[in-house]
Parts: sequence; structure tokens; C-alpha cells
Amino acid sequence: MQTIKFKNKPYLSNGYSIVGPLEGKGPLKDYFDYILKDDTLKEKTFEKSERKLLQDIIVGAIDKAGLRTGDIDFFFGGDLLNQIVSSSYTARELELPFIGLYSACATMAEALALAGIFVDNGLAKNVVAGTCTHFSSAERQYRFPLELGNQRPPTAQWTITGGGASIVSNTPSNVRLVAATFGRVTDFGVSDVNNMGAAMAPAACDTIIEHLKNMGRSPRDYDMIATGDLGKLGSEIFIDLMEHEKIVLGKNYCDCGCMIYDKTERVFMGGSGAGCSASVFNGYILSKLKKGEFKRVLLVSTGALMSTTTSQQGDTIPGIAHAVEFEYVDKSTAKKEVKGD
Amino acid sequence: MQTIKFKNKPYLSNGYSIVGPLEGKGPLKDYFDYILKDDTLKEKTFEKSERKLLQDIIVGAIDKAGLRTGDIDFFFGGDLLNQIVSSSYTARELELPFIGLYSACATMAEALALAGIFVDNGLAKNVVAGTCTHFSSAERQYRFPLELGNQRPPTAQWTITGGGASIVSNTPSNVRLVAATFGRVTDFGVSDVNNMGAAMAPAACDTIIEHLKNMGRSPRDYDMIATGDLGKLGSEIFIDLMEHEKIVLGKNYCDCGCMIYDKTERVFMGGSGAGCSASVFNGYILSKLKKGEFKRVLLVSTGALMSTTTSQQGDTIPGIAHAVEFEYVDKSTAKKEVKGD
Repeated sequence: MQTIKFKNKPYLSNGYSIVGPLEGKGPLKDYFDYILKDDTLKEKTFEKSERKLLQDIIVGAIDKAGLRTGDIDFFFGGDLLNQIVSSSYTARELELPFIGLYSACATMAEALALAGIFVDNGLAKNVVAGTCTHFSSAERQYRFPLELGNQRPPTAQWTITGGGASIVSNTPSNVRLVAATFGRVTDFGVSDVNNMGAAMAPAACDTIIEHLKNMGRSPRDYDMIATGDLGKLGSEIFIDLMEHEKIVLGKNYCDCGCMIYDKTERVFMGGSGAGCSASVFNGYILSKLKKGEFKRVLLVSTGALMSTTTSQQGDTIPGIAHAVEFEYVDKSTAKKEVKGD
Repeated sequence: MQTIKFKNKPYLSNGYSIVGPLEGKGPLKDYFDYILKDDTLKEKTFEKSERKLLQDIIVGAIDKAGLRTGDIDFFFGGDLLNQIVSSSYTARELELPFIGLYSACATMAEALALAGIFVDNGLAKNVVAGTCTHFSSAERQYRFPLELGNQRPPTAQWTITGGGASIVSNTPSNVRLVAATFGRVTDFGVSDVNNMGAAMAPAACDTIIEHLKNMGRSPRDYDMIATGDLGKLGSEIFIDLMEHEKIVLGKNYCDCGCMIYDKTERVFMGGSGAGCSASVFNGYILSKLKKGEFKRVLLVSTGALMSTTTSQQGDTIPGIAHAVEFEYVDKSTAKKEVKGD
């Protein structure tokens, strides 16, 4: 079965998020732990800025949970740069055992799912799962150097500068990981790299349907179902695909890429990048979960798995989505649960 | 603890390996399942050849184990191409739930370790873990297009064309996974991308010491300790580093990169690439384990975590090594084990 149900429901102790200046002007600005004033982070190249950003996020998450680096058993991470160098060099600085991942923008959910499995099965006490992206390093690796001043087509999304990390632990807190579904790679033949939302929508659909079926739930059971970064057009396609499968999503559905920017910010279809669902989850969604304003959430990070080489060689864009379900537990619920949930 | 001891010791049903024409002339030629006559696999680009190669390997492993694609719960894989596209596109073709990994040439051990964890904890019945590399796609992505005819320095290694995959299962067979150690990222300041063995040797040392300590074993307890692809110079450095830590390795130590080519093949320091330990393990080592000629083996795949961008920006090369321990079980041993091991 694609869905792993956590038997001990490991705890999500804390999340930590940092975003760039543009993201820090958006509607979720009050939920991020730190907003950068200078997105170079005083580094000489954007790639080094991205690396420093991830390092600050991981250290921030560990600190916020009241832990030290030595308390962390494993670091689950990945990023969009070739050979996931932001994560590898972060792991080098922090001297943590490192499990390197790549699922493009679905990395946050992949990392959380594996982190959950390790803690759930007693293989670790505290682990950290995190990722980030940087607009400027992504632009020059995947598209064009910023100096060229290229125009963007209207279906394009904006790779966010920012990211987030979560501490998954066996120490009780009021948010738990319930289950995770690892996605299949789907491909509906989209080859336009400026329309990645369309390429990822079928994957989100496939994973969510599988998750709902295996958990015996309907969309109504969630206070929030959040896709990673389908963007405005991608999430419209996603809603249509779900309706085609006779699953009607309500107002509890949202997309992290649509939430992170204001309409006045000229980002076309919204945010994207591994850091998008990472920052929105660890910033906004987790803070709502911790307060009990959301009782049950499904995070579905979505990734487009192409490379510049596959695009140049005429391949279409495969998509993947991984889902992780979280629940809020207050004291009375916790008691009920012991009696038999 | 960095080492995960498998409580149920999941089974390694089968391994499958394919190598290119050059590797197929080497000393291990009789152990590979298939030797390519044409390393383009009739594809138009080397990247597509690599993808086809991985697909053939994964399908080969599933077939050899007498399973169908539908029997496989998860595919754990990664490769050296940017955004691990060989693995992602293979996952698309096979329609398997996909857990994308990146640990450079340490990917085989990372995939086997996670595969072991999933089966050991009852999260899956049968999973496939695999990776591969292609000399020609690696050359043009990491170094120079072959058409340039660049000379290679004497410390250079040769990215192998080939790879392997393993089926990890809860169905009994005579090889079991005993434990796995996930490595830390180490960096001794090597910045020469033509001397990656030296960059990876400290990581191999760190992981093996940790594994031996946590398992309460000495190198003598293994019939083979195989590092991934340190090559000739790298494994000499590794032996020195181990001696410095008062651990003397005997004749049971070998390096997959040194084993795969003949001295007459002009490959300088030996083989490298994610496919190196993947093909040598699933070809040679596993066949010795299955026959009981090896009773206990430690596979330590080693990875150099740089990218072309980090090299261009003056960074040194971080290394990582993940270790997986296997044992042969014959019927009499199996009985003893039930009584209490």
C-alpha cells in the first residue's frame, strides 16, 4: 500500500521558516519566523546564499524546539540545485547524519514522511526535515541569468526565496503525524516548463485520491488540504481533475503557491519551489495546527521532475506528489485516543 | 544512533546488474547478469541511454525475483544526472510509488538501507532499490563532452556504464540485511575533482568506524568490506586513515572501483559512479553471498557531493558514505538464530 499509517503517531515538535523580502510582504508575513531584508545573506553568489539560508533554517528549527544539534539523529533534506548541494553542504556544516532526497518541489512532504517513519518505528528520537529554494539561483540554473532581463510568460510561476524545516520527535507536543502517502510519477504530456502547475496537477490528484481511499476519508474530514505549488492555473486544473473523479473540494482546499503572494505582487501564477510548501507549512499551516484552529491537515507537496537537459531533448514533464497527514491533539482528545482510536 | 539494526532482518531476494562493454571485459564479467554490446541502447542521446539502462535493470531485478511490477510497493532510487532524471523517468515508466534519493555514488547503500527499513517495519512486502550511471552522460555533465577528446589526469577515475538493483522482501531467502549506518558529510578540504577518491576516503572511514562500534564488531568479522568507488589512490588513503584509527584492514577489504576493471584497461585509478558499487554488489558480491562463500559482508557506498557549480565557485568536495551489512543464512544457522541470536 502506498499509504503508511503511523502506529505511534510521532510528534511534530516545531517548525521554522524563513522567507525573502518579496515573500515577506505577502499575506502570510505574520506567520514566518524570519523575513530576510537582504536575500544575498551577505554571500558572494546566490548559490552560497541559498546554502546559508538552509543552514539558518535548520539551525532555527533545532533551536526553536529547544534542542541542540547533537540531539538530532538524522537530517532529511534536499533542494533544487544540481546534486542538492545546498542540503549536502548544510549537512557538512552541521555534522548530522544525512539522508539526501530529491523530489523537486515535493521534497518537504517526502522528508516529513521519511522522518515520520524513522521516529514512528523507534529508529530515531529527534530528526529534522527541511528544504529551501532561492529565486535567483533557481532562475539561473533552470531558466536564464537574471541579468538578461528575460520576460516571463503569463503561465509562469515564481520560485520563492525561502524554506522551512520541521522537527519530528517522540517527545509529546500537540501536533502529530498520522499517515503519509508516497506518490507515483505521472505524466500527462505537458512539455512547457513555464506551465509546471499543469504538469504537477495529475500527480496531486493521483496521490490525494490514493490517500483518501486508504485512510477511508473524504475531503470534508480535513480543515485544510494544501497542495504544494500548483499555482493559480495548476490548482484550477487540479480541481477539475478531482471533480472528474467525483471528488468535490471545498473551501478547505488551497495551494501554497497561491497563498504566499499578494495579488499586487507581479508573480503571475504564484509561488513555486521546494521552499514554497516548506515555508507555508512550517510558517502558516503549522501555526494554525498548533493553536487547534486546524484539527486535521493534509499537506501534498508537488514536484515537477524534469531537468534542463530533458526539456532540451524534447521530453515531457513528469510530476510527483507526496502527502502527509497531521492532526491537532488537545488534552481531552489525547485521553480518548488512549482508550481506543 | 547512526546505525539502524534490523529487528526482523529483511531478505534480499535477488539482485540484477547490467554493465557496459568495457566493464564486461573486466575481471567480474562472469558475475553480471547482462553485458551491453551497444552502450547507446539504441537511444538518440546518452541521457536517454542511461534512462533505458536503469529501466532495464529495475525490470530485470523484478523479473529475476519472480515478481511483477504490481508486486513492488516502492522504488528507492537516484542517479548522478541533474534532478535524478534517469530514476524519475524510470519511475514514470514503471508506475511505481517513487522515493527519490540523492547521495551521489553512495546512492546504492542509501537506497538499500531505506528499503531495509521499510520491509523490516512491515511498511512494505517487496521493494526495489537501484541505481546506475553511464560514462558518456556523466562525462559531459560533470567534465567535458567526449567529442573534445580531453586528456585525463592520472588520479582520475572512470565513471562506469552500468548499475544494479536489489529486491528487498519479507519472503525468505538466504541473504538478509542485518543493519545499516547512514553517514555524516565529511570534508577534508580536497578540491580536485579529478581526485574524488581522496575526497571520499574520510567519509568511508567515519561511517565504517561508527558501524563497527555500534555493532560491536571488528573488520575480521566480515568476509568482505567493500567500499564504493574510492579507486586505487582513494582506497590507499582510506587504509592509511583506518590504520591511524588503529583499525587494520586485512585481505577482506576491497573497493568496487578497483575490482571492476582489469589493469590492462586504461581507466587510471579505477571505476566510479553510482553504478559502480550497484553493479559490483548486485553482480559479484551478492552472488558470493547467495552461495555462502561470503557469510557476512559490509557494503559501504561512497559519494562525492559536489556539483560543477560548487567546484567553479571554489568550494571543496564533501564526501558521504552509507553502510549496509548483509549475512548469509543457511538452514542450520537459521535454526540457531531462532533459539537466540
